[in-house]
Amino acid sequence: MRDKIRIGVIGGSNPTERAKTLAYEVGKLIARAGAILVCGGLGGVMEAAAKGAKEEGGFTIGILPGKDRDSANPYIDLPVATNIGYLRNAMVVLNSDVVIAVDGSYGTLSEIAYAMIYGIKVIGLETWDVEGVEVANSPSEAVEKAFKVIRR
Amino acid sequence: MRDKIRIGVIGGSNPTERAKTLAYEVGKLIARAGAILVCGGLGGVMEAAAKGAKEEGGFTIGILPGKDRDSANPYIDLPVATNIGYLRNAMVVLNSDVVIAVDGSYGTLSEIAYAMIYGIKVIGLETWDVEGVEVANSPSEAVEKAFKVIRR
Amino acid sequence: MRDKIRIGVIGGSNPTERAKTLAYEVGKLIARAGAILVCGGLGGVMEAAAKGAKEEGGFTIGILPGKDRDSANPYIDLPVATNIGYLRNAMVVLNSDVVIAVDGSYGTLSEIAYAMIYGIKVIGLETWDVEGVEVANSPSEAVEKAFKVIRR
Amino acid sequence: MRDKIRIGVIGGSNPTERAKTLAYEVGKLIARAGAILVCGGLGGVMEAAAKGAKEEGGFTIGILPGKDRDSANPYIDLPVATNIGYLRNAMVVLNSDVVIAVDGSYGTLSEIAYAMIYGIKVIGLETWDVEGVEVANSPSEAVEKAFKVIRR
Repeated sequence: MRDKIRIGVIGGSNPTERAKTLAYEVGKLIARAGAILVCGGLGGVMEAAAKGAKEEGGFTIGILPGKDRDSANPYIDLPVATNIGYLRNAMVVLNSDVVIAVDGSYGTLSEIAYAMIYGIKVIGLETWDVEGVEVANSPSEAVEKAFKVIRR
Repeated sequence: MRDKIRIGVIGGSNPTERAKTLAYEVGKLIARAGAILVCGGLGGVMEAAAKGAKEEGGFTIGILPGKDRDSANPYIDLPVATNIGYLRNAMVVLNSDVVIAVDGSYGTLSEIAYAMIYGIKVIGLETWDVEGVEVANSPSEAVEKAFKVIRR
Repeated sequence: MRDKIRIGVIGGSNPTERAKTLAYEVGKLIARAGAILVCGGLGGVMEAAAKGAKEEGGFTIGILPGKDRDSANPYIDLPVATNIGYLRNAMVVLNSDVVIAVDGSYGTLSEIAYAMIYGIKVIGLETWDVEGVEVANSPSEAVEKAFKVIRR
Repeated sequence: MRDKIRIGVIGGSNPTERAKTLAYEVGKLIARAGAILVCGGLGGVMEAAAKGAKEEGGFTIGILPGKDRDSANPYIDLPVATNIGYLRNAMVVLNSDVVIAVDGSYGTLSEIAYAMIYGIKVIGLETWDVEGVEVANSPSEAVEKAFKVIRR
């Protein structure tokens, strides 16, 4: 498990239906490609992506803001409690080899910023327009681009 | 000292000369207005702003990424060591009543994001174009807007 | 995997040979009992325990102080990078249902303290004498006591 | 202010009357000696020590677990919000040149452990019996020993 590629999926806990569908598709494709999905472990985009991954037999890690592992959504295989609140955002991206951002609010923006600080590439899918983020136009393009980045 | 307004100044450690001049002016105006200047304690925009504040007899707090208080720039009155690296960015804004962003790279973007997460208003001076950030066109306009936000 | 019991093993990175042997035995017994082993991911007691667990086909999580997942010892299945240095000690115990302390220096003492703060029971095996820690006299007694605590 | 010696006072939020009196005396002596008092900013030993320091015209820093600076006790001049909960314990000692521990429970034990990890000397006054902590028998002896450590 240790050598498997980890793809982070970041995005808000109150997404639009469209964003949830995108995240769900992204999750499916990550699992089908054999990578581990890393996320913030809560609802919204995080849950939709993890649900997609689990439906394809994938493995999911949720890095939680609180101290209760049960706060993770039902599709998280391995919840990690941090109890440092929003500062866990940095740890979500730090534990990913590449990150796909779907929609999202300021929490997602902080994760994009931390990914860039750590030199981790971000693929953006209908998310913040930030210099350095590589834009994708569909879940499949996002996951393809994510794998290309890793193999570079 | 406890009841004094605290204005955060965020921005990069490798700024342009222009950004340093803007930050220095912002620092001066903050001190003249009687507020405490909070920053990340290191060089670049942080140092320029703190220098400006000290030249006007102000008080400066530097919230440092490392564990060594001596890593603070010479214009910091009160260095606070955190030893949590980039995660201290969230603490810089958390200890400010309002934040002025000057120029800056991804570290500054993470600070803008955390300010918005925490509900702390950000005034932007030639910085990231992020929804919710109030743009100012000069140091004096930035500091005026900062005080207006606090008095609202 | 999510519902499996997690047993933390804490102890120093420069242990005696005896402490390494104890930790190795503890790791074996944890894996044989079907629980996940959680540790700080580095050398010494952490590595000995993880080695024992892997030899019995167990699963191991290593919560690392740095940002490089490769810093984990070779017996860690799932390294979690935190990049917050010694503060990750609190996260090691927070992600355990019960903790077994083997030998150890001040880092281990901080972990014992955090476990007690969080209300997580600590079983002590030739470690710090701290009020509230339940003493065990052998690896098997330690693991037995750990499981008893969880089932209480 | 930057060059002033900082003495940390650590201890519980629910101390005995005796511990509060000891902490109050320690705070007075720290201020009289011209040093800054650093503490966790909340009640109990922290408040008693800060009260003593303020009555002697001293300066006090409170490093808080939460995000609200108003949660600091009334004797704190400079509250620092961290919003990382118990993990702020490490920052209390990290911002002290030497630490005096008065009474205290597991939170205090974690602070003693972090001080030792960071190589910061701890003077103990009716507190945890931990190897490496220098025992004092009165507030005046504790403060004297603290200053001796710094001047060494």
